[in-house]
Amino acid sequence: MSILTQPILEINLSNLLENFLTLEKIAKPAIAAAVVKDDAYGLGAEQIVPLLYDTAGCRHFFVAHAVEGMKIAPLADKAVIYVLQGIGEDNLEIFKQFPQLVPVISCPEMFAFFKQNRLPDRKPVIHIETGLNRLGFRENELAALSKADIDEFSLVMSHLACGDEKDHFMNSYQFENFKRLKDLYFPKLPASLAASDGVFLGHDFHWNMVRLGAAMYGINTAPYRENQMKNVVTVRAPVLQIEDLAKGQFVGYSATYRANTNRKIAIVSIGYGDGLPRSLSNVGKVFFKDGKDLHEGRIIGRVSMDNVICDVTGINNLKVGDTAYMAADFYTLDDMGRDAGTISYEIMSRLGKNQRFIRKYVR
Amino acid sequence: MSILTQPILEINLSNLLENFLTLEKIAKPAIAAAVVKDDAYGLGAEQIVPLLYDTAGCRHFFVAHAVEGMKIAPLADKAVIYVLQGIGEDNLEIFKQFPQLVPVISCPEMFAFFKQNRLPDRKPVIHIETGLNRLGFRENELAALSKADIDEFSLVMSHLACGDEKDHFMNSYQFENFKRLKDLYFPKLPASLAASDGVFLGHDFHWNMVRLGAAMYGINTAPYRENQMKNVVTVRAPVLQIEDLAKGQFVGYSATYRANTNRKIAIVSIGYGDGLPRSLSNVGKVFFKDGKDLHEGRIIGRVSMDNVICDVTGINNLKVGDTAYMAADFYTLDDMGRDAGTISYEIMSRLGKNQRFIRKYVR
Repeated sequence: MSILTQPILEINLSNLLENFLTLEKIAKPAIAAAVVKDDAYGLGAEQIVPLLYDTAGCRHFFVAHAVEGMKIAPLADKAVIYVLQGIGEDNLEIFKQFPQLVPVISCPEMFAFFKQNRLPDRKPVIHIETGLNRLGFRENELAALSKADIDEFSLVMSHLACGDEKDHFMNSYQFENFKRLKDLYFPKLPASLAASDGVFLGHDFHWNMVRLGAAMYGINTAPYRENQMKNVVTVRAPVLQIEDLAKGQFVGYSATYRANTNRKIAIVSIGYGDGLPRSLSNVGKVFFKDGKDLHEGRIIGRVSMDNVICDVTGINNLKVGDTAYMAADFYTLDDMGRDAGTISYEIMSRLGKNQRFIRKYVR
Repeated sequence: MSILTQPILEINLSNLLENFLTLEKIAKPAIAAAVVKDDAYGLGAEQIVPLLYDTAGCRHFFVAHAVEGMKIAPLADKAVIYVLQGIGEDNLEIFKQFPQLVPVISCPEMFAFFKQNRLPDRKPVIHIETGLNRLGFRENELAALSKADIDEFSLVMSHLACGDEKDHFMNSYQFENFKRLKDLYFPKLPASLAASDGVFLGHDFHWNMVRLGAAMYGINTAPYRENQMKNVVTVRAPVLQIEDLAKGQFVGYSATYRANTNRKIAIVSIGYGDGLPRSLSNVGKVFFKDGKDLHEGRIIGRVSMDNVICDVTGINNLKVGDTAYMAADFYTLDDMGRDAGTISYEIMSRLGKNQRFIRKYVR
């Protein structure tokens, strides 16, 4: 028996790399750019950027914020790093300091700011709106651009709303919109429309550059069929305690679970403070390995900040210090997202951020 | 007009300190210990521990993990730091290195480990189970302890399941259980039962030490009446873009919002990657100040990783670069938790962890 206390986040870099190469191959001859915003979806840009840069030869990265770009610039010194949230007073100095950072400009006001604070060595990206109704120039704003304005840009991009639903009408609607606006305003510019979900929509959607994020991290961005990506994230935590729970007893905060028969419970050292969604309360799953056998338990009661209480009735040979698997290749973050009423993206982005996780990068 | 890109997390240290002192006064003569686990609920133990130690004279802290205790030990060098998840093979070295850290032992297996790896200068806490059915010795396990075992401990603690519901039967049930077990097994030991919710349940619940967490951070742990705590957390983010949204248009991923009339929208630079719950999709609120007036907008469509799209129809004078308030004293994290179908604790614990937030500590 081992006595252990800390949760472990394991990130499989080999699988991540393989996912990148698979996606790159599908999208060829489009350039495969890697989306490493939000600290590489929480999994650690400091590890993932050098892997993609050195091993996969990736030379184009996307981040959301300039502060994120600043951190990865020294790790990928010949790469272009696109900054999706663009340029403003609060990050202008970072752009000046790091010539690799290229702002994505999404509205006339930001473009005016860029022209007033010109960085002579930088040709920004223009983000155009095609149906998501999030960031991007609207058509009337494109029509107001001068020829000189248009010559400022090095790339035109847009973003799909429903790329993970193959037959959604929005995909063809956005494709047609994008094609029409590009032909009309930016006939000579390279173009990028697809993130990793768009990669699976066929060559029409690839244009000159695809932006590989979620699928590279193992998320199924084409959930209408089995995942073609390899799993990247494993989350496990030790069992701190195993106890009998007598019929009639309540469990956890606000007493939301009551035992209707005698049960056995295990207290596992992970909670929402570690990024586990609290919405897994009374519905989440937990797994234990016994040799080749995999046993399934269930989260009962409320998920608390540091612990979950699991019903492990009928799981024999379980002892204190054993490993509870919260996510793994047999129960991915996509599965957890479904159980938690959210998406794997949100969970991944939270898990990785906790400082008290033991983080292991495996190859 | 300013062009800005980054979200801002503002932590009011004066209010936090005042909350601590208010709670300490209510609980007197019980010792007021501060719960700073999970990096002080995500708000930054490095700032908060010295404030409580130096200014409020706090000498007892609780963390969940030894790695958390290790980080704060140098900031509070005469304080005792209790480690709730206890001691094990993965943190034994930390306990050896930092004599301030005192493990909380919650089961016989961990106690056996402690005795095998004795730290002669340490008298651990014993955690006993009284109704939460989470961590803690069960009564049959207490009965099996020898007199010598019992002499090992310096404090007996338990934890309430429903301390935030004043009249819940579980409170008196746990109180009676705690009193009976303490009298029977630990008649001479100081005792701790209440976290910050328990502070409001009256003197009976205070025993010798209260553990101040949530309420200190401004959370209303007595939600059956108006919050007596001051707000600590303000979350704001700049408006990146303002656009008209024509009737019939869809918004955001999976096109979950459709405009039934012409609307005006603002894209705000914060998303679930920053810790905003994705469950605020189509229900969350957002606020804008115009002089003394406060205007309320609404999140429409899905919350995405880096942005939210807000309906700002009818809010005049709004321009790019203006500040959107996602949480403040007029719309606290408790309010946001209610709208998001979760609790403020979970949101607070996530918000603070994002590295791309500009963090401001104000006094």
